[in-house]
Order: sequence, then C-alpha cells, then structure tokens
Amino acid sequence: MFYVIGLGLGGPEDITVRGLEIVKRAERVYLESYTSILTVGKEVLEQFYGRSLIIADRDLIEQGADEILQDANSKDVVLLVVGDPFGATTHTDLLLRAKEANINYKIIHNASIMNAVGCCGLQLYRFGETVSIPFWTESWQPDSFYDKIFGNRSLGLHTLCLLDICVKEPTLESLTKKRKEYQPPRFMSVSEAAEQLLEIIGRKCRDHEKLAYTSTTLCVGLARVGSDTQKILACTLQEMKDADLGPPLHSLIITGCLHPFELDFLAQFCDSKEKLLQIAQTSSFIV
Amino acid sequence: MFYVIGLGLGGPEDITVRGLEIVKRAERVYLESYTSILTVGKEVLEQFYGRSLIIADRDLIEQGADEILQDANSKDVVLLVVGDPFGATTHTDLLLRAKEANINYKIIHNASIMNAVGCCGLQLYRFGETVSIPFWTESWQPDSFYDKIFGNRSLGLHTLCLLDICVKEPTLESLTKKRKEYQPPRFMSVSEAAEQLLEIIGRKCRDHEKLAYTSTTLCVGLARVGSDTQKILACTLQEMKDADLGPPLHSLIITGCLHPFELDFLAQFCDSKEKLLQIAQTSSFIV
Repeated sequence: MFYVIGLGLGGPEDITVRGLEIVKRAERVYLESYTSILTVGKEVLEQFYGRSLIIADRDLIEQGADEILQDANSKDVVLLVVGDPFGATTHTDLLLRAKEANINYKIIHNASIMNAVGCCGLQLYRFGETVSIPFWTESWQPDSFYDKIFGNRSLGLHTLCLLDICVKEPTLESLTKKRKEYQPPRFMSVSEAAEQLLEIIGRKCRDHEKLAYTSTTLCVGLARVGSDTQKILACTLQEMKDADLGPPLHSLIITGCLHPFELDFLAQFCDSKEKLLQIAQTSSFIV
Repeated sequence: MFYVIGLGLGGPEDITVRGLEIVKRAERVYLESYTSILTVGKEVLEQFYGRSLIIADRDLIEQGADEILQDANSKDVVLLVVGDPFGATTHTDLLLRAKEANINYKIIHNASIMNAVGCCGLQLYRFGETVSIPFWTESWQPDSFYDKIFGNRSLGLHTLCLLDICVKEPTLESLTKKRKEYQPPRFMSVSEAAEQLLEIIGRKCRDHEKLAYTSTTLCVGLARVGSDTQKILACTLQEMKDADLGPPLHSLIITGCLHPFELDFLAQFCDSKEKLLQIAQTSSFIV
C-alpha cells in the first residue's frame, strides 16, 4: 500500500495516531521537503518516530515516481507531506501513477493552512479563491493573482494568500552546468508579500484602473500557524509591510466584508479594538 | 488551560498525538455533538482514550459556557470537535468568553471537510465560497446559497456544499411545552441535496432567469471522507439525485471550470473517463 500522510502544521506531535502507526511499521518513509516546512527538521521527526526518513526533493517527487513506488504493491511505502496531502499543493500525479501500476493508495488527512487560517477568527466559508504570491525577480514580476483578489473582494470575500517558498532552487549561473548549485532556501514573509501587493496597486493607480484593495485595507498576517510560537497580526496592508512576524512559514489574508463576530475575534490580534474598527470601516470597498 | 481539539474526520485514531496526550490528562473532556459526527460514537472514543467524555449538545455549548469553562484557569478542560475547531462551524464565541474570563486557550488543529475534499482531485485553490444547504420544510425553503453558487461559477470556481445536520431538534409540537421532545437525528444525503438544487433551477427556469448550473452540471458527491468506508461519485446533478452513497456524513461539490489534471483524477470516481469528459464538456457554462 502507498500511503500519503499529512503531518499537520506544527511539530512532530501533530501527526495523527493513525498516521504514526503506519509510519512506524512501513518499509520506507519519504519526507516531502520542497512545498512546505514544519517548525522542526528531519532529525526531530526521525527521533519522534524512532526510524529514519528519506528526503524527497522536487526532483525525486517529479521524476522518481518509480523509485518511490517500488514494491509498494507488496510493502507499505509512505510519503509524508506537511499540512494535508491535498492542501496547498497536490500530489495527485503520484497517486495516479500508483493507480496505473495497480498499487492501492490511502490518504491520511491532517490540518492544512487552508482550514487552520480559521484560527484568526475569519469564517472559513467567507473565503474566496486562494491565491499564491510568487517571489518577484528583476525581470519576472507576475501579478495574475491580483485579478483573483479582485474577484473575491467584489463578492465581499476574504482571500488567503499562500506565500512563496524557494527550496533547492538552482542558481541562475549553474542552470546550464552539469553540476547544479543551489540558492539558500527562502520563505516569503508577510512583509515582502505586502510590499509586492502595494507595488501592484501603485501600477494600477498610474493606469487609472479600479483597485481591488488599497494601502489601508485590513489584512491579517499569520506565522507558524498551529505551532507554539504562532503569531497573528491584524493591521493595514501598509503597516504589514513593516511588520516582523519572525521565522517562516507566513501566510497573508486580505479581508473582504467583515462580520461583527469576525471583528470581535480579530481584535485580539490588533493594537486595540478601536483601531481595528476604524480600519474595518472603509476596508471592504473597491475604489 | 481551555483546549479545543479537532478530531479529524474518520475514527478515534484520527486525533493527533498532541491532542490525545491532552485528552488523557485533562480534568474534564466535552464532546461537541451537534454540528458534525464521526463514523463512531462516544463509547468508541471513550474506550480509545481510556476515559469518560461529557456530551456537549447545542444548549450546553450556547448557554453553558460558564459550566464548560469552570476552573479552566487552574485545570485543563477540553472541548472535542469533529473536524477542525474552525472548520464548518466555529466555536469562537466560547473562546472569546474564555478570554474575557482570563482563561488561556489553545487550539489543536486537524483535518476538516474544508480541506479534505481535495481527496476527489479537485484543486483546493479552485474553490470559491463554501455554502450550506439546509433541510427544507413545507413552509420554509430558503435558497440564498444559490446566488453564492452563481458567483462562484461565474468565476469558474467549484462550490463545496455542506449538507444539513439536524441533531436534537425539538419537535414542532413540543416547542411550546416545558418538556421538549426531540426529532430523530437527520443528515442530508447528496441525493436530497441534489433534489433541492434541481427544484431551485426549476423555479428559476419558470422565471426565465440565468441558471448557475443545470441538471447536467458535473457534481461530486462525497461520503464519510477520511474513513475506511469513504465513497466518492462524479456524475451529473440529475444522476446525483438517484445516487446512494450510504450512511452520513455527505458533502456535495458543484464543479466550475475543470483542469485536465482534475479530470484525470476524478475519472476514478466516474463510470468511465469517456463519460466524465462528455459531462465536463458542457458542464462549466452558465446558461
């Protein structure tokens, strides 16, 4: 059997009891390591499980399906994924490969950022389409997510922005070489995301386009959700640019229309309830 | 400390290791019993945890906050919630009460239907606003969720429909009496949901309104997600009306625009890939 097991969001104890039992008895256990991270590394997980893990980087996941699935029709093979197996990113291709090879698979679900963002008090059913914000470079500054935020806010909905992760990205210089060299891992902060979002509306302003949000729109920054060091901040997009929520992972919410219950709960994460109400008053408009 | 711990979606083993440790050592453990259900009952959970649980029905959760939170500043009190604490429904009011009483709280996240629906292969970030479909009565047939489905499908997005649960609802006759009598619990099936959805477009048709979906729109029915008896079916809305996915809980997805990867994966849950492609061809239009 091929198992894909969600690890949840915090530390090693966030695996489910069902998941842990499978990990302990499996033949091989891979740890997917490029779409998300826990607040702890491989060694802490290995100690907790009492067994060794095999790191599965992008190359292995995307090109090494045969290797991962080897013998999985007679033995138990596990792929561990941070969050839920079907969370921010999917591993559906690997599951289809398993099916084609007549290997049964099973999913062990867990919390993902897609549902755990509810911890800030914004109602999950008031979220629209989730967007991903990629790191910009000098020459590559995509902003297709902007239209999706526009669509969500037109309907009064909140937008969860998943922030970019660069792990084991080859350096530009080594792309043409046989031996790849890798950039140090980077994780986008809410501050960096806010900066890019502000840059986009600067351009739209110059083009006299309608704005999906402004510098005073109420945003919620979340860091290390589900861990003991979780941090949540509710403030304007402009203020978010200068916020420091500490180590990764970060996520950012651009709010839509706000319900009084949502504001009551969000107030915990703002300097004061008065300030929050003041921001919220004009926040939901598209101008 | 006041803990709200998500139980996930299947059986007792779907609690996280972190959650189980807290449950075992806590002073009192309440089991929230009216917004969702597992595939097992209280007794099975009690046996697995090796301790007794207190059932928390709607009355207790909504009016008995003081009782639940009693001594929680010096002792550990737990509220167990099916899915994630912030999943389909929130318990934010109870958390705000705790905060007002200077009681610290902590959330232990888990899978909820909001992220576990990804198991059908539809991408989570392609979902719009989630809607709830309530049981209709002779005289009460709300359809405000229809406009939300319309909004989602206009943007090409999928809609997750959470289906109604009636647990411990007083009978109409006993509403005015001192001693309440309760209706047997009811859980809406995908078939019942499809019937109501078809009824709505029947009315819209008569009024010559644009339709958010039609009887041939591709839908995905899901039952007991995360459990060993999980069942998924991809078919038209009309066919869903006659489908039987077995015991609760059920959820229904009305699809939007479909990506080839999504169709590849969905094909597992349809009679044939050819049939799926045929349905999908016209499915995403608003007519």
